[in-house]
Amino acid sequence: MASYKAPLRDMRFVLYELMGGDALSSLPGYEEFTRDLIDPVLEEAAKICEQVLHPLNRSGDEEGCTLENGVVRTPSGFIDAYRTFSQGGWTAIACDPAYGGQGLPKAVNTLVEEMICSANLSFGMYPGLSHGAYVSLHGFGSDELKNAYLPKMVDGTWSGTMCLTEPHCGTDLGLLRTKALPQDDGSYRLSGTKIFISAGEHDLTENIIHLVLARLPDAPAGVKGISLFLVPKFLPDAAGNPGERNGVSCGSIEHKMGIKASSTCVMNFDDATGWLIGSANKGMAAMFAMMNTERLSVGIQGLGLAEASYQGAVAYARERLQGRSLSGAKHPDKPADPIIVHPDVRRMLLTQRAYVEGCRALGAWAAHSLDIKNHHPDAKTRQDADDFVALITPVIKALMTDLGFEAANMGMQVLGGHGFIREHGMEQYVRDCRISQIYEGTNGIQALDLVGRKMPAHAGRYLRGFFHPVQAFIEANMEDEALGEFVQPLAKAFVRLQQATGQIARTGMAKPDEAGAAATDYLRLFGLTALAYMWARMVQTSLDKVDGDDGAFYRAKIGTARFYMERLLPQTSGLFSAIMAGGASMMDFAEDAF
Amino acid sequence: MASYKAPLRDMRFVLYELMGGDALSSLPGYEEFTRDLIDPVLEEAAKICEQVLHPLNRSGDEEGCTLENGVVRTPSGFIDAYRTFSQGGWTAIACDPAYGGQGLPKAVNTLVEEMICSANLSFGMYPGLSHGAYVSLHGFGSDELKNAYLPKMVDGTWSGTMCLTEPHCGTDLGLLRTKALPQDDGSYRLSGTKIFISAGEHDLTENIIHLVLARLPDAPAGVKGISLFLVPKFLPDAAGNPGERNGVSCGSIEHKMGIKASSTCVMNFDDATGWLIGSANKGMAAMFAMMNTERLSVGIQGLGLAEASYQGAVAYARERLQGRSLSGAKHPDKPADPIIVHPDVRRMLLTQRAYVEGCRALGAWAAHSLDIKNHHPDAKTRQDADDFVALITPVIKALMTDLGFEAANMGMQVLGGHGFIREHGMEQYVRDCRISQIYEGTNGIQALDLVGRKMPAHAGRYLRGFFHPVQAFIEANMEDEALGEFVQPLAKAFVRLQQATGQIARTGMAKPDEAGAAATDYLRLFGLTALAYMWARMVQTSLDKVDGDDGAFYRAKIGTARFYMERLLPQTSGLFSAIMAGGASMMDFAEDAF
Repeated sequence: MASYKAPLRDMRFVLYELMGGDALSSLPGYEEFTRDLIDPVLEEAAKICEQVLHPLNRSGDEEGCTLENGVVRTPSGFIDAYRTFSQGGWTAIACDPAYGGQGLPKAVNTLVEEMICSANLSFGMYPGLSHGAYVSLHGFGSDELKNAYLPKMVDGTWSGTMCLTEPHCGTDLGLLRTKALPQDDGSYRLSGTKIFISAGEHDLTENIIHLVLARLPDAPAGVKGISLFLVPKFLPDAAGNPGERNGVSCGSIEHKMGIKASSTCVMNFDDATGWLIGSANKGMAAMFAMMNTERLSVGIQGLGLAEASYQGAVAYARERLQGRSLSGAKHPDKPADPIIVHPDVRRMLLTQRAYVEGCRALGAWAAHSLDIKNHHPDAKTRQDADDFVALITPVIKALMTDLGFEAANMGMQVLGGHGFIREHGMEQYVRDCRISQIYEGTNGIQALDLVGRKMPAHAGRYLRGFFHPVQAFIEANMEDEALGEFVQPLAKAFVRLQQATGQIARTGMAKPDEAGAAATDYLRLFGLTALAYMWARMVQTSLDKVDGDDGAFYRAKIGTARFYMERLLPQTSGLFSAIMAGGASMMDFAEDAF
Repeated sequence: MASYKAPLRDMRFVLYELMGGDALSSLPGYEEFTRDLIDPVLEEAAKICEQVLHPLNRSGDEEGCTLENGVVRTPSGFIDAYRTFSQGGWTAIACDPAYGGQGLPKAVNTLVEEMICSANLSFGMYPGLSHGAYVSLHGFGSDELKNAYLPKMVDGTWSGTMCLTEPHCGTDLGLLRTKALPQDDGSYRLSGTKIFISAGEHDLTENIIHLVLARLPDAPAGVKGISLFLVPKFLPDAAGNPGERNGVSCGSIEHKMGIKASSTCVMNFDDATGWLIGSANKGMAAMFAMMNTERLSVGIQGLGLAEASYQGAVAYARERLQGRSLSGAKHPDKPADPIIVHPDVRRMLLTQRAYVEGCRALGAWAAHSLDIKNHHPDAKTRQDADDFVALITPVIKALMTDLGFEAANMGMQVLGGHGFIREHGMEQYVRDCRISQIYEGTNGIQALDLVGRKMPAHAGRYLRGFFHPVQAFIEANMEDEALGEFVQPLAKAFVRLQQATGQIARTGMAKPDEAGAAATDYLRLFGLTALAYMWARMVQTSLDKVDGDDGAFYRAKIGTARFYMERLLPQTSGLFSAIMAGGASMMDFAEDAF
């Protein structure tokens, strides 16, 4: 089975060099988060991911979850691992200190999340979904609900879920039917069926707190009539401990392509007692608070699996002896050369690497923007950061999962036939990654969010958070002797992105289908340009360090950047042409003719 | 579960309209293969694939194969289905009438193969591997061996395998170690271990005939010291029936990502009796006879799975109600519009369709060229056809499996979360398709074959079989009023292909790593240009029929061609730029730095 080592060196590069050494600790409230505090956090996270979570990844996939008499059992070892995980404080790192959390910066949490996803995505789903529920409850719940539930969700004693999807509605939540009837005591009774509920039922925690979208009796039709409710599996007793069983149960679990150790449940609510979170009929807002966090996290899932696959592929490519280098034997003493000498194998490894490191940097930018949004003293700076996060969230979710899937497939391909065999673990990364392109809004929905909501919002204001810094960077560095080589391809891609943006804004205004037809290609054009910007900035950070102690690291950065610019970024030209061709070929095609 | 209907209308279009009505029956020896004979063959094939094979596809995946005491059991229903299949004559259709075969043209067989792969790829592996073994034995075996084994392999009573790979060698067969010791009676004793042997052991046939690559004691090192042997599971008795058990056994079966109903075996040869096929040390030639046939067939696997996924996705997109058309509700009477109204869903469906129909046409061109090679009265025409097949084989294998995988993933994506659930069958197409990019030579190896062997062979002679007809077509139709719209993008892609070819020929001569670094991008550039040529020709065939009885069919052809040219073919520009950037960014990257 492929092993995993957390890429701490590159994480430190992103955190302390690319973002700047005091990017975090200079924010009010974050003074304590210096390198001295963060480094040990990353190292401890690496340890638990490498030593506790990763060893359960393959066995968890083989064993899967089981449902018997309404009880879901996670695979062997998960209960112990979860105990170690929560007792180590890992469920609390991203949470509010007021409820027992550690309040670490998002930029740090994101790196920890990446490690968890690399090590064992299925395991990570349990605390991950809990955190989504935490975010909604923390943002919109009453103090009474927050005091009753958040401390135990933060310390991991209880976990949470998000119950959105129903059999007949996923993307289009306006169709949902689950009902909530108000009771005299201020509580509600919920009835309905939810599907695809990750961590809906399991044996890791003593209680499970469901956040459920449902309709009040008098609710308007569509998404404006949806409210969010808290429905615990066990109703807390007077002491706040799990008491009476509530009317919520797991009807079945899904048999899936991947993330088999994550339970995906059909949840039945039969007159289940719940409490309103936030205002009546405003459930979508509370849901989107969670959803936006989760979308960034899902992007990180793609990154984490790509990193894991890269590591497995490199290890194999160094070991596997097969054929000779086209330029003459590199290891004449051995029966054959290791396959890492072959250009096509290097192409696959460098593609993985360029995507991984580019996405890690992009994810850190978004995460750091969230920290700025939450902590910066200047209101305009906070607003700008918020705009940027709104813009980049769908890009991160879709781009990083699409590239993650491609990268995971390349890693598997490096192993040839052995990659297709389950015991090597490489095909599991592919299967596990596949869902990330689908859940929390399919990648097509992300693309529509980008072109339909984020692009036109406030007359294009969100776009500025990306376009302005890129433009400024290009202008400042285009003529730089060493950096110019990297800035010029970025500039070319950026022109394409600007022109495509203009085209979509123009045509999409009159014909929304035109924006829809361009959306997926546009998101990828956007994302690849964003990665080019990250790569150019990483080169800038590295150039004067190539002769230092750690020179090999910086030379590899520059080498990977060159590969990205020369061999991957050119995809943008085809995407640009496809977008500019417009959507008539899709929309004029007769529906019956499919 | 997704259902499957053989796309007979499009198959007839390719066979009788695109290729020309008498393309087959005008070949000497093929006079009888008129439409009257072929149509019922296709219809019967459709019937068995839709009604017998496809219903076992999902259950076969869930059940998989089992190994107990050396005996491999195929999933429930496979034995009966195989009986129906072989008694229906389907194992014999592509075989020599001298041994009981039906000798159908390759162009027809290829369409039947596609249906089998769409319906149940795992099932198709058993007769598929048999046919590979048949080809080698038929081409290189002695009359004695052929008379003893071929009739039963043709009628399906016995099956065959190809035993190439060993634990330490797959791509680089020069490293193989299995030994063959000559015996006084002219037979050999084989010892060694083979892995990844599809259909190595199973319960469908009374005997299994292994074709095994091994070394004679005095064999030179490397690929020039490999011979091919026939090693039956049971040694035929005097009457030619299965007699004594031979020294070959299945040590274990692999647990794989997909094609789970196809047994993939570790085969142990312990002093097993075998007979030489062809000349000593010339085993690679006999192996490649099989391999080239199989590579075309594997390309067809990608096509078949893409077609099946397309059908499942279209059916879902028509049924699933979710959201409203961006241009206003299309079905205001329903709670929501079917998702087929959304541009991004249409993008996915049209991408699948454009790849599927383009690949079907390209596959038919290659298959028909094989028929010409085997039956045309003119030697030069036969040689030209042979050249073309040599050139296009790696393109078909790699392009059609890469596009097949992409298409299968798109089909799954159309279903959203439901696509990830096993019961819908859509994710199985993805898993089953994934191996096609790996076996019979990884797609990276196909690309190296194209740039390293096929392109330079005979000073570029093979290339002419593709470049000349495309050039002539462009010149003849560039200015055509109706066709010009499709010929111009083809011409643009073709110029890129020609320039990239020149660049690789120049730089690859001095530095083979340059050709290696360009190989994968070049193969895809080649393949997409080939599909553009097929699409332009399909439009040419369709233009004057759009107002006829079956006008909708031809309008859909033209609409799909337009989508291909506008939205998919532009990929070639990025591929071109990447190739022209050269391979330095891959080859200069320090090995230690990965």
